[in-house]
Amino acid sequence: MPYDSGGLEILDPEECRTLLAKVPLGRIVFTHRALPAVQPVNFILDGGDVVIRTGEGSKLAAAARNAIVAFEADDFDADARTGWSVVVIGPARVVSDPEETARLRDLPLRPWAPGRREAFIRIRPALISGRRTPETLPT
Amino acid sequence: MPYDSGGLEILDPEECRTLLAKVPLGRIVFTHRALPAVQPVNFILDGGDVVIRTGEGSKLAAAARNAIVAFEADDFDADARTGWSVVVIGPARVVSDPEETARLRDLPLRPWAPGRREAFIRIRPALISGRRTPETLPT
Repeated sequence: MPYDSGGLEILDPEECRTLLAKVPLGRIVFTHRALPAVQPVNFILDGGDVVIRTGEGSKLAAAARNAIVAFEADDFDADARTGWSVVVIGPARVVSDPEETARLRDLPLRPWAPGRREAFIRIRPALISGRRTPETLPT
Repeated sequence: MPYDSGGLEILDPEECRTLLAKVPLGRIVFTHRALPAVQPVNFILDGGDVVIRTGEGSKLAAAARNAIVAFEADDFDADARTGWSVVVIGPARVVSDPEETARLRDLPLRPWAPGRREAFIRIRPALISGRRTPETLPT
């Protein structure tokens, strides 16, 4: 297993995708008014893309319009001090095709926040990377 | 309690700071090679600042040098579908003063990853904001 300079296990893309599929929530990273922005979102994987559901007039929908964004998901155990993190970087687009929207609406992607969320954002991973705390320290 | 357009409770700065102090891990958002970057990090609050410990030659230490960064921490319960998130935005600086470094080294900030981490990054919150899923839906 390869390790990075910080002593963390480097995950391969296949492991990253497997881990991503295990959690319901991630964080999308974008730029809003020239400042870095980050927002937790429920997501689902669809054909290898990260799909997020948001309000049509949300700042997220506006900011993600054809921008390059990052998306991070992780799972850490504070007591054991272990866990993993996966980061996807790629172009985001707001889904505009009515047939695609109808199909995505049927996916098991239920936001935790109340309020109407009729816009879907699709992030196509151009880069995917992940790290995991080592089970045993590297020698 | 005020709510945002997505139906989430808007937390005041005091609540945000109280919640931040309850978790050991957050995510720093910065720019690396002109791309958005996000990395989980252990942190501690010190005099209102978010303090992170990293390797001296890390890409994080390089990228955070006098940049405006975002820092996010959250705590979600996937079963109850509830939780909160706090985001801090502000200038980051790498601590260079030896006395300050010595003092920070004595704080209970123990990174979970192995490897030497002798650089401290300090983020001064210029903006702090938070959201929480509502206990009951807003009427």
